[in-house]
Amino acid sequence: MIMDELARRVKESSLKLAAAGTELKNKALAQIAASLYERKGEIIRANLEDLERSEKENLAAPLSKRLKFDEAKIADVIDGIYSLIKLDDPVGKTLLSTELDVGLELYKVTCPIGVIGVIFESRPDALVQISTLCLKSGNGVLLKGGSEARETNRILAEVIIDAAAAAGLPPQWAALLETRADVDDMLKIDRYIDLVIPRGSNEFVRYIMDNSRIPVLGHADGICHCYVDADADLDMALKIVVDAKTQYVAVCNATETLLVHESVAPEFLPALKKALDSKNVELVGCPKTRTLITVAPATEEDWKSEYLDYKLSVKVVSDLDEAVDHINEYGSGHTDTIITGNGDKAARFMDYVDSGNVFWNCSTRFSDGFRYGFGAEVGISTGKIHSRGPVGLDGLVIYKYKLIGNGHVVDDYANRSRTFKHRNLNREFTL
Amino acid sequence: MIMDELARRVKESSLKLAAAGTELKNKALAQIAASLYERKGEIIRANLEDLERSEKENLAAPLSKRLKFDEAKIADVIDGIYSLIKLDDPVGKTLLSTELDVGLELYKVTCPIGVIGVIFESRPDALVQISTLCLKSGNGVLLKGGSEARETNRILAEVIIDAAAAAGLPPQWAALLETRADVDDMLKIDRYIDLVIPRGSNEFVRYIMDNSRIPVLGHADGICHCYVDADADLDMALKIVVDAKTQYVAVCNATETLLVHESVAPEFLPALKKALDSKNVELVGCPKTRTLITVAPATEEDWKSEYLDYKLSVKVVSDLDEAVDHINEYGSGHTDTIITGNGDKAARFMDYVDSGNVFWNCSTRFSDGFRYGFGAEVGISTGKIHSRGPVGLDGLVIYKYKLIGNGHVVDDYANRSRTFKHRNLNREFTL
Repeated sequence: MIMDELARRVKESSLKLAAAGTELKNKALAQIAASLYERKGEIIRANLEDLERSEKENLAAPLSKRLKFDEAKIADVIDGIYSLIKLDDPVGKTLLSTELDVGLELYKVTCPIGVIGVIFESRPDALVQISTLCLKSGNGVLLKGGSEARETNRILAEVIIDAAAAAGLPPQWAALLETRADVDDMLKIDRYIDLVIPRGSNEFVRYIMDNSRIPVLGHADGICHCYVDADADLDMALKIVVDAKTQYVAVCNATETLLVHESVAPEFLPALKKALDSKNVELVGCPKTRTLITVAPATEEDWKSEYLDYKLSVKVVSDLDEAVDHINEYGSGHTDTIITGNGDKAARFMDYVDSGNVFWNCSTRFSDGFRYGFGAEVGISTGKIHSRGPVGLDGLVIYKYKLIGNGHVVDDYANRSRTFKHRNLNREFTL
Repeated sequence: MIMDELARRVKESSLKLAAAGTELKNKALAQIAASLYERKGEIIRANLEDLERSEKENLAAPLSKRLKFDEAKIADVIDGIYSLIKLDDPVGKTLLSTELDVGLELYKVTCPIGVIGVIFESRPDALVQISTLCLKSGNGVLLKGGSEARETNRILAEVIIDAAAAAGLPPQWAALLETRADVDDMLKIDRYIDLVIPRGSNEFVRYIMDNSRIPVLGHADGICHCYVDADADLDMALKIVVDAKTQYVAVCNATETLLVHESVAPEFLPALKKALDSKNVELVGCPKTRTLITVAPATEEDWKSEYLDYKLSVKVVSDLDEAVDHINEYGSGHTDTIITGNGDKAARFMDYVDSGNVFWNCSTRFSDGFRYGFGAEVGISTGKIHSRGPVGLDGLVIYKYKLIGNGHVVDDYANRSRTFKHRNLNREFTL
């Protein structure tokens, strides 16, 4: 299989990239930034080809907008690369150092994961972002973009791979896939590919999760909740819910369901309806909600829905536990916030809600790698292992144990002629 | 489906267990230890039933030996529980604290993964070890032991669940599965089960990996290598290879393949053969090896084999890179060691070998959670995400982000009326 051979070569190169130092990787990143600038004419021409073809094929307007990759977008991705150069290298950090015995020292040191398969939709900026994140973290990468951006993706991949090679990196650390069949082939190659990161629609991510044995980092749904507690400052609650719902509706950290304590619902819901009506937000509610404000009924399906639109489902609850249970039953483990003046209730909410991001008195929209100060974002994960919530560069590394001895054998410890010390060395790994 | 309902209840209880404090969890562990001691008569009787039935069914002798759970074994698992009580609680550790803006503080805090499915073979001690590890780390657990130990497993599960409930833990945090069909059902319930840990034979682990969407922590093969470099101290190399091969052959960190640099092979291999002959180790070798010592030819299949027996495959290589390439091609990412007096070569080996444990001048047999000083071992992972190498209690936790605000909304940052500070707080999370 051609894909198998391609993945094998990327894997081989990734082992060399894993051992590349910070200086070489940053030099390659700077070279990529310079080449993107130098070859911007070629890039813009390729993008125009994609835009023209898409127009002929009647691509939907929002997709066309995302596809556009002009001089301003090129300047943005170059800025992004310079920010990435400034970030700490996530590779080579010593997480643990222990003297097992005299002359026998154990070090737990971060290293790249290996080869990452990244699948993204129309935006060509994603190709630049994700390939440079992989480079900085020492990972090989297989890239598959949307077919509507194929000319742009081709030239971007060429520029990036050529520039990195010119700086001295192995030429095959990155490769571009072009067809949907390539993706299906890639998802089978768990021998060489260590992690898949899908960026796109719910259905798309779910398809990837269902069709590969390779671990997947990402999220299918973002069903986020605001819970307005009995002890909430209702002005604050109104401000937060309006932001969480309307500041940007098409994103995974926007709130989809509002839970309100029954004791404040009669005062809060009419004020909320007024505020959201002015923003053209459609409300649906539980029976109790509908005794307080005039809205359409919410169905079971509403509690499971990520609207990504100007729509909010509303449920009145009788206590904090009912709110927590609702979130753990219907939420997607993404981001949920409580608005309350009561610290004990806030602590209880944050302990019991089983989501990657649990907030108190602030908007769900803060759940984001840049807002968290990570400097770069690989994606947002709702998984329960490895990385959870917004994932920065750290999510692209794992660790290996390095044990340095001087002829040490286990038999000496098994026959009790020697014993382990297990003393913390608190020291960076160096040879 | 019955299993679905059972898993749902364990999941619900796990959310309560996740919020239990260290004191309560340690109290439950002490109660379990006390109950195992008090009810040892019942346990030993149940085990005798299993042993008698197994004898009638002609169970192989090594399996019968592993099945035996007598007073000494009970004392061992009780000791293990008291060691576990002394270990740090892996839950509630603050990994990161950042002031995003005035009054808006982000904390990354460790928390349990959720529900762990554990499948183990005949040894009943595994049931006690793994359930108490899950308890200490705040995880719910579904346990499936070997059917030959079914009476012993039943009484052990009953003792553990009753004792934990008496100490105040939710009664359904743990459950025992009894049939192979239960396991197949469990592997489908990725909605409630977050991680599967299979402990058993290669085929068994591979079956689990191939038949579930739930992440798996473990290893199928342990194909470990010793590489004797041109600059090795050959006396040291002999001592290490003999230990790595023969100290205990039936374990995953025993060496299966020896690689020797061609410049030292003529001196080293005859000495090695003499030493291993005296331990009744069968050798197979590459063509070059066979010009130096009289051994049977090694086939392609030998390089891929985990013998778990008194057998070693031997290959002569022309340089370090050939050794590294061989390991990365045929190894299982478990544990590999270089014997050399040259630090640069050792560093290169440890950087380029893509295994969880890379050693210099010591035996592969050191790759173990207890020898590493973790105090407890969940298993050894050859995966590339979450946990790698010997996994201690830390492998059973993940983290959540807790964000504390005071009415903060994203719109203020989007419209530039406020800006992020991203100042490291270097502070433990408390409310």
